[in-house]
Amino acid sequence: MKFFQKEIILPRFRRGFHLVTDHIVGEFIEMKQIEMGILHILIKHTSAGLSINENADPTVRHDMETHFNKMVPENVDYFRHNYEGSDDMPAHIKTAIVGSHLSIPITKGRLNLGTWQGIYLCEFRNFGVNRHLVLSAYGS
Amino acid sequence: MKFFQKEIILPRFRRGFHLVTDHIVGEFIEMKQIEMGILHILIKHTSAGLSINENADPTVRHDMETHFNKMVPENVDYFRHNYEGSDDMPAHIKTAIVGSHLSIPITKGRLNLGTWQGIYLCEFRNFGVNRHLVLSAYGS
Amino acid sequence: MKFFQKEIILPRFRRGFHLVTDHIVGEFIEMKQIEMGILHILIKHTSAGLSINENADPTVRHDMETHFNKMVPENVDYFRHNYEGSDDMPAHIKTAIVGSHLSIPITKGRLNLGTWQGIYLCEFRNFGVNRHLVLSAYGS
Repeated sequence: MKFFQKEIILPRFRRGFHLVTDHIVGEFIEMKQIEMGILHILIKHTSAGLSINENADPTVRHDMETHFNKMVPENVDYFRHNYEGSDDMPAHIKTAIVGSHLSIPITKGRLNLGTWQGIYLCEFRNFGVNRHLVLSAYGS
Repeated sequence: MKFFQKEIILPRFRRGFHLVTDHIVGEFIEMKQIEMGILHILIKHTSAGLSINENADPTVRHDMETHFNKMVPENVDYFRHNYEGSDDMPAHIKTAIVGSHLSIPITKGRLNLGTWQGIYLCEFRNFGVNRHLVLSAYGS
Repeated sequence: MKFFQKEIILPRFRRGFHLVTDHIVGEFIEMKQIEMGILHILIKHTSAGLSINENADPTVRHDMETHFNKMVPENVDYFRHNYEGSDDMPAHIKTAIVGSHLSIPITKGRLNLGTWQGIYLCEFRNFGVNRHLVLSAYGS
């Protein structure tokens, strides 16, 4: 069994859903040494999440943003935690919905995703900072 | 450490939430060789998801479907991505909510789930296709 | 590669979102033997979930509870599964939204979370029972 671990910093993204598959794969070349294994990704933040979704048509990412804003609206009177702006508490809730970590099978040194799947960074703050990820890859 | 990996194809299911625990366990007998480990499951699609929930009463699966349709409605004017029908974009969003992968402890060759837990295939398309899963099991 | 597995029982919590990081880390000292690895946590119940979110300000946990109750309301006429009360079916749905398992990198024997991240037990029942967790830790 092999085990690799690495921390990387993503470039800043504006609020919305963004494809970061190539960025992650490009930064973690150790993964290629794994014949059969798992890639695990944690985002070390509570106002941005990770998801797997459609990797081709940008309208999917656009509609995802629109709907998450309906499902978790800003400026509702019942939020107490809004010190950092109207996007503060909604960002925490959206993160709880999509989740903070992913795990994806590795087969012959490559991510074994479906044809249409990509890794999304879900940036829920109006002014996103650089997001830190912990990448772990393990297997035979 | 042992590591097994296998791709399987589920039978077609109609739109809704469906128990597939027995199907997965039955197709992946290598898992029995693991004394203490993890089963990882990825669904290679972006319009169907995986979840762990109640394994007994069918009304749970029924109500789950009803509520997800309220939480992510079809035919709203703000969706742009509807080329494949009114269920297209909602299927992507519901997948982001439940997630595309599961991991479950293995103890003495068996899934170590709670008494009432089962694995759900969440089929979000009106006409679901055969869904492909990557199964990985590893441990001592 | 090392692999440790253990079942623990959390103290009872009232309905809401609760920080349990210290409880989990304190009960699973075997984790300290892992230089580089993963901690996996499964909750063996379908009416309580696990999440990673903000570990400092209690208003985040308060607003999380308020918003989940808006997003998944009780006493709506379309729920059939309400044998155990109005919180019964909403608890299953909320569990599907946040998820039943977490995985977190271990680095030098410690959880490698962000500064503001903690592990939440999401108790969705009015009268929560003792919740059972399966903890697995593995790595080099």
